[in-house]
Amino acid sequence: MSDFPTAVRINEEGPREGFQIESDAIPTEQKIELIDALSETGLRHIQIVSFVNPKVVPSMADAEEVVAGIAGKPGVSYTGLWLNARGLERAIATGRLEIVGSINLSASDAFLARNQNRTPDEQIELQHKMLDMYAAQDVPIQRATITAAFGCNFEGDIATSRVIERVDQALALARDHGVAPQWVSLADTMAWATPQSVHRVVGAVRERHPDLELSLHLHDTRGMGIACAYAGLQMGVARYDAAVAGLGGCPFAGHKGAAGNVCTEDLVFMCDEMGIETGIDLEALIDCATLAEDIVGHPLPGAVLRGGSLQRIRERLAAGG
Amino acid sequence: MSDFPTAVRINEEGPREGFQIESDAIPTEQKIELIDALSETGLRHIQIVSFVNPKVVPSMADAEEVVAGIAGKPGVSYTGLWLNARGLERAIATGRLEIVGSINLSASDAFLARNQNRTPDEQIELQHKMLDMYAAQDVPIQRATITAAFGCNFEGDIATSRVIERVDQALALARDHGVAPQWVSLADTMAWATPQSVHRVVGAVRERHPDLELSLHLHDTRGMGIACAYAGLQMGVARYDAAVAGLGGCPFAGHKGAAGNVCTEDLVFMCDEMGIETGIDLEALIDCATLAEDIVGHPLPGAVLRGGSLQRIRERLAAGG
Repeated sequence: MSDFPTAVRINEEGPREGFQIESDAIPTEQKIELIDALSETGLRHIQIVSFVNPKVVPSMADAEEVVAGIAGKPGVSYTGLWLNARGLERAIATGRLEIVGSINLSASDAFLARNQNRTPDEQIELQHKMLDMYAAQDVPIQRATITAAFGCNFEGDIATSRVIERVDQALALARDHGVAPQWVSLADTMAWATPQSVHRVVGAVRERHPDLELSLHLHDTRGMGIACAYAGLQMGVARYDAAVAGLGGCPFAGHKGAAGNVCTEDLVFMCDEMGIETGIDLEALIDCATLAEDIVGHPLPGAVLRGGSLQRIRERLAAGG
Repeated sequence: MSDFPTAVRINEEGPREGFQIESDAIPTEQKIELIDALSETGLRHIQIVSFVNPKVVPSMADAEEVVAGIAGKPGVSYTGLWLNARGLERAIATGRLEIVGSINLSASDAFLARNQNRTPDEQIELQHKMLDMYAAQDVPIQRATITAAFGCNFEGDIATSRVIERVDQALALARDHGVAPQWVSLADTMAWATPQSVHRVVGAVRERHPDLELSLHLHDTRGMGIACAYAGLQMGVARYDAAVAGLGGCPFAGHKGAAGNVCTEDLVFMCDEMGIETGIDLEALIDCATLAEDIVGHPLPGAVLRGGSLQRIRERLAAGG
């Protein structure tokens, strides 16, 4: 029935995804407070800022201040996001981030056109330039990401063969530049995945590239996030992006349809209950989720932050309570 | 990997579960409005009221008025809940409900003691009395329900062998009275289930009783509802209780974070996308979920009611939009 991994690695994206989308400006010190708290949970990978144009994304204008302000827990890798050379330079200049490059292709041509105003060929060309830039800066290539891998609001369903083609192109790009991504991330950018399509797409990619490590980036817009993660676990996928409290979505705050990444503490809860190692202290993470809600000032979509862990109930019962 | 059913039957419990727990009194006509709207979605089974002591559950004091007030769609089975002979008499007296009996056992002795102040033996005795009462009233026995089948806030983890034992006891009770339940419902009353435990428990019951039809009653308190339903689908389970918009929650589960049943439209969405027949019009159901939110006056946990269906996007794209 299943090929569960014994352990998973979770890349926390809440601070970057979440604070970027919130309409009210979050004070820099509160961003730092959450990142520092997350750093104490056992999370090893936290994406904390975007280096994007502050005129376009004002909520990330304090990226340098955030990076400079965090305590910086040894053993925790802090990363940022950038879209161009200027952003990369800013990230490097902080001196405190893990600088890793990625190859980015879209399984949806329509999404690429709409979101980045590029054709597939232009996207490939851009990746060549980015890979040259990474080589010039001695930046290792960590991963390849295939966005819209499960469907697209502008193109509809995405054929599995298209995903395979993009994975092949990404690996060919890497080979051309003498690098090898550590894993390929299949991103359900617009929440089209179901657990069944996770099985199908992951299965097809794995059949073609049996030794390629895969990662899943899941959104919970249609409530399928945890079920898709479960399907990923069944397929042995051991890397997940997630966001504490489901930050990045505000289903209760009038952003109709917006929902964030799959919720970190709900995912950790599921893994804990299944005996899959995450290295994360769930109770500490639940405290972070509550802090995230306090910071954004409205309810966030996570469930376990309200429902509580089962381990705490077990401990209370064991203590005779 | 999977043994998906070709079709599932969904028992809508939102009106009963949901309106029972809401702290503000919902006007009778609004309850009726939602039930009538749900009746037009293709749902064939809707549990609409509880016949309980109005002093204990004031929100259900208008049960008779609700039943009398609904339009009553032909082909839709409307049911009620009762806990004793008085409740059953009230249900029968409406003349408009499908009157079906059930056998109810708890997999958790502690939950039984806490919630109903009975020992397991006393619960068996009560079931004998209820079965005699049903026989006297010519009420067919539709199902047996095992509550707390996946864990309990007052007892902790529940051994699979305990669930098996309770299923065996329920079937023995039925045999003693010359009846046979159409299915056995495994109820995750306090949201302890994970998709993995659904596989385990359903698998164990099925191994012992290969021809027994099973149903799942799932709560979403810890965000596992849809993932557990997916696990049920993988195991071929073709009956689910669900609540529109995720209405409800058990006021007696002793848990502040208690969330409602798995959300009907999220479940229907998943089935639609997987090609599993539900007979339900998802767009009409989403409208009902929005109506349910309007009626209770606060956001409800469903995701698809905000995220929207994919079919609607596909249709827009097909129309060139």
